[in-house]
Amino acid sequence: LLPFGVACVAIGYSAKTFLDKKTCGAQVNPCIRKNEAKVVNTVDIEEIGNQKAFCRCWRSEKFPYCDGSHNKHNETTGDNVGPLLVKKS
Amino acid sequence: LLPFGVACVAIGYSAKTFLDKKTCGAQVNPCIRKNEAKVVNTVDIEEIGNQKAFCRCWRSEKFPYCDGSHNKHNETTGDNVGPLLVKKS
Ligand code: FES
Ligand code: FES
Repeated sequence: LLPFGVACVAIGYSAKTFLDKKTCGAQVNPCIRKNEAKVVNTVDIEEIGNQKAFCRCWRSEKFPYCDGSHNKHNETTGDNVGPLLVKKS
Repeated sequence: LLPFGVACVAIGYSAKTFLDKKTCGAQVNPCIRKNEAKVVNTVDIEEIGNQKAFCRCWRSEKFPYCDGSHNKHNETTGDNVGPLLVKKS
């Protein structure tokens, strides 16, 4: 019975993994301002200076700015996200 | 045996859901440019004009710009993500 149970747990686990990929069903933001219905940041162009990198992985300690945390997230999960760079040409 | 199997599948499914929340382990980007190691977009300040909304949910058809797809993503998953607004004051 034990091996059967373990196999079924594995099936459930894999099913969730598969469905999340298929349906885009997983949450993007695990931690930031979860008490708010929608996290929108507004940035004044004048404040950007020559260049700013903005976080799109939702793991930055300096959100809404990028602090490089996307690299660890990408390594851990096999994801491929990176920041938005806004700069003067 | 069937109910036991079903219960174990449910346990596996829930475990994955729980772990993803706990470890921030789920991928953020399900579909966009998955052949690239890291998706970085660079935008020239001059191109922004008065205001642009940039996608941070990775579901926009107009990525890197926001097309409102974050609303459906938030409804479906219980997430709370929204765009970055860059504008002239
Ligand atoms: S830290 Fe989130 S994109 Fe860089
Ligand atoms: S469509 Fe992605 S943040 Fe709006």
